[in-house]
Amino acid sequence: MASVVGVAMGSISDWPTMKLACQQLDKLGIGYEKHVISAHRMPDELQAFGKSARNKGLKAIIAGAGGAAHLPGMIAANTTLPVIGVPIKTRTLNGVDSLLSIVQMPFGAPVATVSIGESGAKNAALLAAQILGINDKTIHQKLLDLKHEQRVEAKNSEQQFD
Amino acid sequence: MASVVGVAMGSISDWPTMKLACQQLDKLGIGYEKHVISAHRMPDELQAFGKSARNKGLKAIIAGAGGAAHLPGMIAANTTLPVIGVPIKTRTLNGVDSLLSIVQMPFGAPVATVSIGESGAKNAALLAAQILGINDKTIHQKLLDLKHEQRVEAKNSEQQFD
Amino acid sequence: MASVVGVAMGSISDWPTMKLACQQLDKLGIGYEKHVISAHRMPDELQAFGKSARNKGLKAIIAGAGGAAHLPGMIAANTTLPVIGVPIKTRTLNGVDSLLSIVQMPFGAPVATVSIGESGAKNAALLAAQILGINDKTIHQKLLDLKHEQRVEAKNSEQQFD
Amino acid sequence: MASVVGVAMGSISDWPTMKLACQQLDKLGIGYEKHVISAHRMPDELQAFGKSARNKGLKAIIAGAGGAAHLPGMIAANTTLPVIGVPIKTRTLNGVDSLLSIVQMPFGAPVATVSIGESGAKNAALLAAQILGINDKTIHQKLLDLKHEQRVEAKNSEQQFD
Amino acid sequence: MASVVGVAMGSISDWPTMKLACQQLDKLGIGYEKHVISAHRMPDELQAFGKSARNKGLKAIIAGAGGAAHLPGMIAANTTLPVIGVPIKTRTLNGVDSLLSIVQMPFGAPVATVSIGESGAKNAALLAAQILGINDKTIHQKLLDLKHEQRVEAKNSEQQFD
Amino acid sequence: MASVVGVAMGSISDWPTMKLACQQLDKLGIGYEKHVISAHRMPDELQAFGKSARNKGLKAIIAGAGGAAHLPGMIAANTTLPVIGVPIKTRTLNGVDSLLSIVQMPFGAPVATVSIGESGAKNAALLAAQILGINDKTIHQKLLDLKHEQRVEAKNSEQQFD
Amino acid sequence: MASVVGVAMGSISDWPTMKLACQQLDKLGIGYEKHVISAHRMPDELQAFGKSARNKGLKAIIAGAGGAAHLPGMIAANTTLPVIGVPIKTRTLNGVDSLLSIVQMPFGAPVATVSIGESGAKNAALLAAQILGINDKTIHQKLLDLKHEQRVEAKNSEQQFD
Amino acid sequence: MASVVGVAMGSISDWPTMKLACQQLDKLGIGYEKHVISAHRMPDELQAFGKSARNKGLKAIIAGAGGAAHLPGMIAANTTLPVIGVPIKTRTLNGVDSLLSIVQMPFGAPVATVSIGESGAKNAALLAAQILGINDKTIHQKLLDLKHEQRVEAKNSEQQFD
Repeated sequence: MASVVGVAMGSISDWPTMKLACQQLDKLGIGYEKHVISAHRMPDELQAFGKSARNKGLKAIIAGAGGAAHLPGMIAANTTLPVIGVPIKTRTLNGVDSLLSIVQMPFGAPVATVSIGESGAKNAALLAAQILGINDKTIHQKLLDLKHEQRVEAKNSEQQFD
Repeated sequence: MASVVGVAMGSISDWPTMKLACQQLDKLGIGYEKHVISAHRMPDELQAFGKSARNKGLKAIIAGAGGAAHLPGMIAANTTLPVIGVPIKTRTLNGVDSLLSIVQMPFGAPVATVSIGESGAKNAALLAAQILGINDKTIHQKLLDLKHEQRVEAKNSEQQFD
Repeated sequence: MASVVGVAMGSISDWPTMKLACQQLDKLGIGYEKHVISAHRMPDELQAFGKSARNKGLKAIIAGAGGAAHLPGMIAANTTLPVIGVPIKTRTLNGVDSLLSIVQMPFGAPVATVSIGESGAKNAALLAAQILGINDKTIHQKLLDLKHEQRVEAKNSEQQFD
Repeated sequence: MASVVGVAMGSISDWPTMKLACQQLDKLGIGYEKHVISAHRMPDELQAFGKSARNKGLKAIIAGAGGAAHLPGMIAANTTLPVIGVPIKTRTLNGVDSLLSIVQMPFGAPVATVSIGESGAKNAALLAAQILGINDKTIHQKLLDLKHEQRVEAKNSEQQFD
Repeated sequence: MASVVGVAMGSISDWPTMKLACQQLDKLGIGYEKHVISAHRMPDELQAFGKSARNKGLKAIIAGAGGAAHLPGMIAANTTLPVIGVPIKTRTLNGVDSLLSIVQMPFGAPVATVSIGESGAKNAALLAAQILGINDKTIHQKLLDLKHEQRVEAKNSEQQFD
Repeated sequence: MASVVGVAMGSISDWPTMKLACQQLDKLGIGYEKHVISAHRMPDELQAFGKSARNKGLKAIIAGAGGAAHLPGMIAANTTLPVIGVPIKTRTLNGVDSLLSIVQMPFGAPVATVSIGESGAKNAALLAAQILGINDKTIHQKLLDLKHEQRVEAKNSEQQFD
Repeated sequence: MASVVGVAMGSISDWPTMKLACQQLDKLGIGYEKHVISAHRMPDELQAFGKSARNKGLKAIIAGAGGAAHLPGMIAANTTLPVIGVPIKTRTLNGVDSLLSIVQMPFGAPVATVSIGESGAKNAALLAAQILGINDKTIHQKLLDLKHEQRVEAKNSEQQFD
Repeated sequence: MASVVGVAMGSISDWPTMKLACQQLDKLGIGYEKHVISAHRMPDELQAFGKSARNKGLKAIIAGAGGAAHLPGMIAANTTLPVIGVPIKTRTLNGVDSLLSIVQMPFGAPVATVSIGESGAKNAALLAAQILGINDKTIHQKLLDLKHEQRVEAKNSEQQFD
């Protein structure tokens, strides 16, 4: 399956969170490639990744980072693909720093920011699927199915009242 | 020109900000329809808008709201289209409330959140264009042109040093 | 005992907190019905719940939600009953996001917001009882009794000084 | 018209905000009495007001205060009537201090907190009306009318697009 | 030893923190009385405590409270004695709510606020001693001794480098 | 009139705020000396001021500072007199920085912190008077008079309702 | 005079703030070059600037940016020179976003962050001078002179008491 | 090896964090001396340390402190050497207080602030090395080597994907 989404993270320590995005992409049947690209340790690789992303067939990028969290914004600076930013929860500031560093982008390089941490990582995959699903009926159907499942699951969860 | 983007705002008082998104869509040659849809005053219209958005040909939705700012998230609950949320700056909390209400969505209904206020509105249009530009060469070229222009403009701005 | 209070929560994961509201309603002898109604997964059920609440005999609604926390506000958009919002504590932002998303409602759809988390859930039940107690002498007497008990308990707690 | 709502504020400087609550009560045809009761300058009057509120026929209390904002909570400590708290916007902290001081009440003395500032004051009146409207058909009808008006007004506001 | 300091706390759950203030007063040889006085459950006792404090020989009051934390400010409203406020750390907001509720007092009823939590409780005792020490040579000498000890202890702590 | 209170501020730009403390001391008939002592520009003078304060007859110190706001804490490090800290409102962070820098002192050097800005400056004078008033009947009477005046003024302010 | 400091800013709109850094460098007799380098519009120029900075003789870099504020950190990623970051005050969040985005850098690419806004810009110049002054007696003397001047100026400012 | 960096911390409880700075200096082959210097318990030693730092051969100072965190700024007030401030994570406010107290310095005494906690401590050592490395080829080479190592390590970390 060809990779249409690029999943990047600033550090291997973001993997436990970003893995949830990958698992969700798997469930939705979306091909992806994944990378550790530290904005601050691998700035050349970051540039190269951003500039080549579209040409190698990617259609959307999911980038997770914590703290100063420059990765999503710097990828956005180097591509015209939509970039989805996942603010990783941090030990000191709980991800408020990550959120502000990712979302407060100036005009010209938007980052589609999702919620802090695990729910954000899963939602990033969903958002990528929504973007791809505009023109892809299979993905669209999977999104409809997921929405249905979640509705049923939420309804049935009342059985857990004790 | 057919509308492919829906621009929604929670109140006419959001228009001065959201107008910037519309103007940017105009510049990028993207057709859009615009609406005031108050999540709290027009919940039925909100539901209807979300449910019908895809069928009437929209491919992405930009929704701006301030304060409790439920509009983007509730549209996302009712569609599988990507929803871009613009946190409107508020008088008391400067839009921190809008930002958190929009970005902190649970798994299942992501909102692609951009920065607070005017730069966010303009970036929302750009993000919509990036999404459409995945499969649309004309839009893609306009995004490349805009990136080029902004680079030149930024470089030339040094002439304003005094 | 007929249900006069509706207790809603956005997710079964809110139950450990919202259960405290239910237990308090039990102690006060107030009938209630309880539901999981996810604003984002069950938007149609949410609309239906809000619109039918009054007609089926409910007099007040307690709604708990976390993060973007749209449930209380969206119920308020669909009913003229008083809606009491309980901001659920969140893992990343400790419920500051829930609080702002619930309390910062625009004119037209107030949510009576109580404190974050467990004390808020218990106070929500109390607030519902105060609302019902305006015209109900039995409930009013129970509120007086509770106030008295709490006063005695607080005074006697000095025996726990060590 | 008998007073059924007590409107209290911590300082005459809160009047420009709290006047909006009063005007809204006027529109809804709800009788009220209004007072300046400084929690810190008039603690005895505060106690007396709280303790006598129910007996003199009040059914709900709206209390606005800024900064440390003890007024709503201390009234709640002295009555079993529902107390609605309006966090007044402050010059230094924009009302975040008022909000936290009002909403973070411990179990036993809930305060039904609304949004910071002017929209909060207006919503406080609406919330009082919702509470009264549970058993009062006239008020209930006025709330339905207001909801309808607001919906129409929001829809029509699209004519202001320029 | 006559009580010259009153130590009050809003709940017995504040005792583990406030005990540190008491232990420090013990070390400084200052007599004190201690009470649980819930502002919201025992408003009458609070009034009585404030009003009688000076006459029964107290010279300063230390009051600890968490969340909405009205105790210190309401005591200050009822006495001309200096009131020292200790913001208790809270589960949800870590004591930011307590701090703002205690420190942001309006003109007329100052509360001498110390740091959040345990260091604050100990410092409250020290501040009381400083106030008493203005005219009390024994206490003043103990403060000088403590300052000396702390200096020596800090210097010697370098031996713990590993 | 001998100076019994030292009023210090970190910069002449704090004078418009700190002047309010001085005016209040004047009204209360309390002698004071006032100084600009920048913790960062005049560290030697700061040390000297702290160390000599008690011997020259001061009984309490009021110190106002903004931003990093080290002045109150560093005076406290150099004296056993009670130090009252006034957080000056700042242009960027509205005084939140000043507040945290002043109040979060470690055990050993408490600073009696009052509210941010103008009300804090006036309350600092009041707190100093409360401290002096423990043993000074004239000051105590003035405090009682002020409390009475404020109560009357607050009551009468209702005449300003329009 | 050869340039030994590079002054970079993310946008010409930062110039009114960053000009203060340049003026201070002028006063200290330190040569500098200044540039607008938008991290998001000119990523290639940013990389080139960072990589070439040392070789062209620069010894320290001052970088100002607002919002997501990636400029200082991305320069730090591309050089071994010390990078001083100036958080520009922003319209919505007053520079809290800029501060966190600049200061919360991960291990490997420190940014020497100074205070938000104008005082930060001036201090950045001073910090650069301190760094250069380690080995440069002329600059060191100018720093001593400045410290002396500021001390005298602070002392004399007492004449402005009114 | 002569000490060229002074490492100071406000309390021995900061040592677990500041030890990371020392270990990093060791790895970079930079001589240092380390001290506990409490700004509030050892103000005289603090003054003496600042004033003598340059003359005894130090070229940069790293100072870590938590809470009110006056140490870095007060050292900066007493020296013309560059001072690097490490905000120690605090139990109540996670180091936000430390950060603001350290970074928000007024013009005249800059503190080069790094990130909160452990990464900040390590980065402080790196920043000191960058400062020294301007004129020291050995240190410069070690910084290049570290940058290379970190890049390789980041790249290789992808092998940890599971």
